[in-house]
Amino acid sequence: MPDREIGALRLIPLGGLGEIGKNMLLVECGSDGLIVDTGIMFPENDMLGIDYIIPDFRYVVDRLPELTVHGIVITHGHEDHTGAISHVLDSIPAPVYATALTAGLLEIKMEQGGHRDHPLNVFKPGDTFELGPFKVESFHVCHSIPDSVGLGINTPVGLIVHSGDFKFDHTPVDGWPPDFAKLAEFSQRGVLALLADSTNADRAGWTPSEATIDQAFDRVFHAAQGRIIVATFASLISRIQQVAAAAQRHGRKMAIAGHSMGEYIKVATRLGYLSLPKDVVISVEQAIKMTAPEVVIMATGSQGEPSAVLGRLAWGRHRQLEIMRGDTVIMSAHPIPGNEELVHRTINKLIQRGATVIYDPIAPVHVSGHASQEELKLLINLLRPKFFIPVHGELRHLMQHSMLAQEIGIPRENIAVVENGTEIVLTPDSLTVGGRVPGGYVFVDGAGVGDIGPIVMRDREILARDGFLIAMILIDQETRELIDEPEIITRGFVFVRDASSLIETARTLIEEIVGTHNNGNLTVALEDALSKFFYNQTKRRPMIFAYVREV
Amino acid sequence: MPDREIGALRLIPLGGLGEIGKNMLLVECGSDGLIVDTGIMFPENDMLGIDYIIPDFRYVVDRLPELTVHGIVITHGHEDHTGAISHVLDSIPAPVYATALTAGLLEIKMEQGGHRDHPLNVFKPGDTFELGPFKVESFHVCHSIPDSVGLGINTPVGLIVHSGDFKFDHTPVDGWPPDFAKLAEFSQRGVLALLADSTNADRAGWTPSEATIDQAFDRVFHAAQGRIIVATFASLISRIQQVAAAAQRHGRKMAIAGHSMGEYIKVATRLGYLSLPKDVVISVEQAIKMTAPEVVIMATGSQGEPSAVLGRLAWGRHRQLEIMRGDTVIMSAHPIPGNEELVHRTINKLIQRGATVIYDPIAPVHVSGHASQEELKLLINLLRPKFFIPVHGELRHLMQHSMLAQEIGIPRENIAVVENGTEIVLTPDSLTVGGRVPGGYVFVDGAGVGDIGPIVMRDREILARDGFLIAMILIDQETRELIDEPEIITRGFVFVRDASSLIETARTLIEEIVGTHNNGNLTVALEDALSKFFYNQTKRRPMIFAYVREV
Repeated sequence: MPDREIGALRLIPLGGLGEIGKNMLLVECGSDGLIVDTGIMFPENDMLGIDYIIPDFRYVVDRLPELTVHGIVITHGHEDHTGAISHVLDSIPAPVYATALTAGLLEIKMEQGGHRDHPLNVFKPGDTFELGPFKVESFHVCHSIPDSVGLGINTPVGLIVHSGDFKFDHTPVDGWPPDFAKLAEFSQRGVLALLADSTNADRAGWTPSEATIDQAFDRVFHAAQGRIIVATFASLISRIQQVAAAAQRHGRKMAIAGHSMGEYIKVATRLGYLSLPKDVVISVEQAIKMTAPEVVIMATGSQGEPSAVLGRLAWGRHRQLEIMRGDTVIMSAHPIPGNEELVHRTINKLIQRGATVIYDPIAPVHVSGHASQEELKLLINLLRPKFFIPVHGELRHLMQHSMLAQEIGIPRENIAVVENGTEIVLTPDSLTVGGRVPGGYVFVDGAGVGDIGPIVMRDREILARDGFLIAMILIDQETRELIDEPEIITRGFVFVRDASSLIETARTLIEEIVGTHNNGNLTVALEDALSKFFYNQTKRRPMIFAYVREV
Repeated sequence: MPDREIGALRLIPLGGLGEIGKNMLLVECGSDGLIVDTGIMFPENDMLGIDYIIPDFRYVVDRLPELTVHGIVITHGHEDHTGAISHVLDSIPAPVYATALTAGLLEIKMEQGGHRDHPLNVFKPGDTFELGPFKVESFHVCHSIPDSVGLGINTPVGLIVHSGDFKFDHTPVDGWPPDFAKLAEFSQRGVLALLADSTNADRAGWTPSEATIDQAFDRVFHAAQGRIIVATFASLISRIQQVAAAAQRHGRKMAIAGHSMGEYIKVATRLGYLSLPKDVVISVEQAIKMTAPEVVIMATGSQGEPSAVLGRLAWGRHRQLEIMRGDTVIMSAHPIPGNEELVHRTINKLIQRGATVIYDPIAPVHVSGHASQEELKLLINLLRPKFFIPVHGELRHLMQHSMLAQEIGIPRENIAVVENGTEIVLTPDSLTVGGRVPGGYVFVDGAGVGDIGPIVMRDREILARDGFLIAMILIDQETRELIDEPEIITRGFVFVRDASSLIETARTLIEEIVGTHNNGNLTVALEDALSKFFYNQTKRRPMIFAYVREV
């Protein structure tokens, strides 16, 4: 890592590898620091048993004696920006700053994490506040949760703009378009560096407005003869508003199924971000008593989660509701990468139970919350930053975003495409990619944070593939003979009830080896022989253990 | 199941649930039968340890004494149509019929499966042959492997048309468009039922022609400064031809990396389906010696398989080649559903090593081999079948295909949307959906076929999530006391080196329980106590075993 220069600004994205700034960003200038977002990542399909992943912020903690973190600013209320807040506060007790809805959602997490009384400062989009030497100017952006902001951060070396997660929606559901005026003003003042959301950098064109959903809903509502069930993200407040409006237009009542959606609705309603017409909202109990064409049910489970409402309906395991022939299910969400199989399986199961399922591409019943290529180019051209740092997305998205920036005239050498944990050093006239700070994935599994590493993961992979087998062997220390036959415990390897002759042959093999073994390690000899035997017989490689005990 | 009517035709798709006719179709009339395709399915991400899935053809085997299977006709050489051939022949030794390339690929499988001398009859697309009372008229279709056919099957109740996997490509790479004349002729004769490929039934429009790839390749080849590496399916012969042609146009030489691709090329070249210009093809060894702008490398691994060439390049584990800054990698394939994470991770790793990676949607470097909505409607309108049976696809695709058919005038009651294992009964003027024959998934895991069921799968899930722990407890049968401290073996649960105090506390707990236990089952008491203890400490639920032995 290059020596720390006085007067240089250092940006360090912290989080999972292959991604940058998705989860947490450290802004550092001398001994003053500021953190943007504290998100979690969701485990991929082969990260067995992992609940979620938090950014590795060891570097910040290690620097704490000399570094003052003046604040933690959260751009919006999604898990990949808020989820690690308590983990971070456990080690970095800086004051938190967020807009009202984001703060409402953070409060719940902070309370659960034992940080109930921790300072949580609420600002309005457009507000400016000072954090040490940094003056933060927030600005409203459109995204798939209300009250999202981007940040203009005035630093000793210049103005840095962080887009947050955004799209340029001219007709958002809440009637609150992005703050173009602020962006224009930043541009006039001169932007040293722009950090911008890269999620959809490989999508051509302009992400459709939320308003386009209304037409798609109208077509589906018009055609539906029976009940309508709409599944979406619990946090997609604007979609819930849209469904309520569609229900009203088509003379239906709307019930909410799903605990987390109920929670979001409660917070959003209390804070004024959601206003459901009183005569439209009914309870699930009331919905059950009404005739099918009168009802819309909003549900969680758009990602195929088996324990959410839609998953329970698909598998016939919901406490109150069940799918009826004639139901129309609208999947108003796209599968998050990695969830495709689960989502498709859920759709197939719903069809099996008699539902008609409407999903994109069958009808445009969902739009992304992230900007596509033309919007990304517009943001860069609005701000005309000197330096450009694509953030939020996998490396392939960052790279594509960098290509777009070059197409519109940002020189390659003024762009930093870096992975998490890589430091970027900015001065008023230079951008340098520095070294790597220590860190990587921090897995959370049950109560454990960071205790599961590659060795346990590798063991889980082997166990998942072929299970294990353990043979208990008691030997008489006088006669060196087996004390009755070896006991064998196995799981995940063979179906024991049908494998008795295999197990019996293995017992005989153990007896032979014990009988003839006279030097070296008996445990190793047994484990080797059993591994070979079972591989020959089954072409599988379970974990094999021999527990040998002399008595 | 309804009684078997004399003169009725019975169609039974066999294979995985949620899908129909993807893998294997039984056509049955009285005591005469015919099988179309013998494919495998690939396991989903949560089918832990499973190598592949074969159709459940128990029903056919059970009926064999009374049923004569006159032939097994394979429509094309993809694994999901050929892969289970040896499993099927083990139980149903009927003669096999296929076109030359398909037969060339089947031969390898049949030899490996011990069916070297089994009758394998080669026909040309357009040929007609008789199998008992069935006259089979094959017709050429375009798909992502050469020599693909659909089948007109003349049966005692009428003409059934099976599309095979197809698209309507007017400009295929091999210059051999689909056999529209045959379809028109079938139509004139009158088609009782059409079974058609539903894979892309939810995609609007018309699948682009293979010819469009040439332009995309030209753009990428023109821009590339260094080596070009093209990854695609080993069986996508036409794509290999296209890359060779692009190499020639742009003055490059082409090397083939990847065993399976080499095998496909060998068979396809020998049989005349591939003709690579001699002055273009070089070996990998020669490619290594040439300068970067002279070289194209064709590689396997487009699905992110870690052991295929592209996977090895991405992780720096290839024996001969490594990614160099300036390489351009073209992913000329779409991820098969379920492979998205692996493919994206591979792309990120390649970028990390300095490659530029081109994939759809960044550039249109791949097209699907399956028909989209306008082609599907055209097929139905060309044939005007009385009855329609969507096949090949998940339930959601079949349902969408049914909607398309209804849009163009096929009455709902003349369409059968069924899952595998459901019998469809056809007479000259009726279509009836019958009962389910026994069957489901048959998992192949190592040498085991069908021995892994829900219990083993469930155990693998638990082991994958939280591992296991076993405590070995020896008790003196006189004193009822522990013979030194309990031994504990655990994997996939905690990182043992860091968990010594947890394990130590568990040992103390065991000692306490053994010391105070005086009635009931000690093993159960220990397993209960350990499960509770570990859950409280870690919020994880490993499989817990106590092995208690008195000596």
